[in-house]
Amino acid sequence: MAIAVGSKLPAPPASLWENAPENSVTFPETGKIILLGVPGAFTPPCSSQIPEYIARYQEFADKGVAGIYVIAVNDIFCVKAWKEALAGGKDSQVHFCADSTGEYIKTLGLDFDASGLLGNHRSKRFAAVVENGEVKSLFVESEAPEITVTKAETVLGGL
Amino acid sequence: MAIAVGSKLPAPPASLWENAPENSVTFPETGKIILLGVPGAFTPPCSSQIPEYIARYQEFADKGVAGIYVIAVNDIFCVKAWKEALAGGKDSQVHFCADSTGEYIKTLGLDFDASGLLGNHRSKRFAAVVENGEVKSLFVESEAPEITVTKAETVLGGL
Repeated sequence: MAIAVGSKLPAPPASLWENAPENSVTFPETGKIILLGVPGAFTPPCSSQIPEYIARYQEFADKGVAGIYVIAVNDIFCVKAWKEALAGGKDSQVHFCADSTGEYIKTLGLDFDASGLLGNHRSKRFAAVVENGEVKSLFVESEAPEITVTKAETVLGGL
Repeated sequence: MAIAVGSKLPAPPASLWENAPENSVTFPETGKIILLGVPGAFTPPCSSQIPEYIARYQEFADKGVAGIYVIAVNDIFCVKAWKEALAGGKDSQVHFCADSTGEYIKTLGLDFDASGLLGNHRSKRFAAVVENGEVKSLFVESEAPEITVTKAETVLGGL
């Protein structure tokens, strides 16, 4: 069942990795976090959307956000290379998470069939604001390449 | 049925792309070509294996090779970014092909289950020398991370 406003956020599975194989991601249990689902590392829309979150991280932090987690159904090596390409080798406070099997995105009910362009099921483009483990707001683009309700400025404005 | 020495090489499907979506790859029908199957763009072994093929392309050409085709079960955006990372933005005569659904690699019988590390079925690491559409030699690593029989120098030595 898809998450919705008011849902308890399902905990990430051990297969959701950051930076290296086997390095499972955990989210802080308290405080405010943002999940950003993206269809594909290195795709032009995703590569234009995420840098604004990196550049404006401090503004999110000033509004109480303890972490931003970008999640892509790509393998850890592509996700890590993409992070390095976007964050310019600097240590970014935006986490880049690889959900290589799509297990977590399917649990969230936010996958879609992107086989024609990308070969498999991927994440819809979405932004979820989660507070103390509960989904407070959820924005899902109706078309995956679009960046409207999931734009950093828009999400920031709603905090 | 997996290809073997003496097999006619199956033609690539329209879903095997190079450089951009919908840009289907075709192989020359005559002359000598080399197919290189790799488990994953941006994985450390693959990123160490391929540069030698790029650097020594002229030596392959001198032995009559008309094209080298690297094939990965990754989407076109990751494969293109990987090509740019390895070829340093220069125009390389080594083709980087995205078999995003794994359709071609499965047709060749050279896929394996890499779900644990990479999330799905990928290509075994192999090198095939094809002449006038017929497989003349085929080298498959017994362990995907290894680079022994598929090393550029080894393949070059056998031409």
